[in-house]
Amino acid sequence: MKFCSACGSGIESRIPEGDNRPRHVCISCDTVHYQNPKIVAGCLPEWQGKLLLCRRAIEPRHGFWTPPAGFMENAESLEAAASRETVEEANANVSQLALNGIYSIPHISQVHVFFRAQLVDTNFYAGDESLEVALFDEQDIPWDHLAFRVTTLALKNYYRDPSRMHVGSIIV
Amino acid sequence: MKFCSACGSGIESRIPEGDNRPRHVCISCDTVHYQNPKIVAGCLPEWQGKLLLCRRAIEPRHGFWTPPAGFMENAESLEAAASRETVEEANANVSQLALNGIYSIPHISQVHVFFRAQLVDTNFYAGDESLEVALFDEQDIPWDHLAFRVTTLALKNYYRDPSRMHVGSIIV
Repeated sequence: MKFCSACGSGIESRIPEGDNRPRHVCISCDTVHYQNPKIVAGCLPEWQGKLLLCRRAIEPRHGFWTPPAGFMENAESLEAAASRETVEEANANVSQLALNGIYSIPHISQVHVFFRAQLVDTNFYAGDESLEVALFDEQDIPWDHLAFRVTTLALKNYYRDPSRMHVGSIIV
Repeated sequence: MKFCSACGSGIESRIPEGDNRPRHVCISCDTVHYQNPKIVAGCLPEWQGKLLLCRRAIEPRHGFWTPPAGFMENAESLEAAASRETVEEANANVSQLALNGIYSIPHISQVHVFFRAQLVDTNFYAGDESLEVALFDEQDIPWDHLAFRVTTLALKNYYRDPSRMHVGSIIV
């Protein structure tokens, strides 16, 4: 961040009055530009004991597998975000969302939220951001080709106890 | 947002290629400025069956009561954010954080996360953003002077079942 998005002037890094950490502050209009963690919401879609995963068609981790998930948008709920991402990445409709895991990833300032969900049918197919979409039994999960550490953690916790709520952090 | 924070040029609202909704895009360098929901993290600090609440010294809802909570910062975990806010607003140290509720608030693009927690001692006192801090039995909770709808929902769910995880949304 180099310029103020409100007035176009320059930005300096300083601790605003009443605050306790450096922020991006406009040198002209004094607007404080806060930066905060982003939420990634996704589903663990089930069908007859199998789980739906997507193989990524985009970077980072092109070609690796994840559950359908992506950045939550303004003006939506967590459940709406997770369902929307499942449609966008896998053209898959889900119901009965139940929170299954929430994971902090401080070094990239993200929080990932996964819902266990039920596939409505098997008419899914890869969206623009997926190379392929498939259902896996637990023993067939491509553990060595999962996209992110949080993917592995979320899937391991899910299989350890699908109906429990899991909380964790990825610390590097 | 009127100016690009990367190059200082003007901003237009348009749907970037491969996207499906309008974003703030720079007319000069094409940087897309995404806007995403913010996370508010807080604690429900317990002491001998009572719950610690703070009376707000700041707007919005100056003078009304809430559990200690505030915006999660970059590079911290949910638990770290909730503990930090509890120190900042109530000078109260907590341990044994257990996720108790997560609430989407789409109309203000926020997600609130509350942890049940144990007060380490009763040496708490109001921080800069609190007028006063106090412990309440359930029957003494100032239900008519709570700060936000999510405050009421989180406390009602907590008292309904303190050890269960609650998920909800505030829809207006």
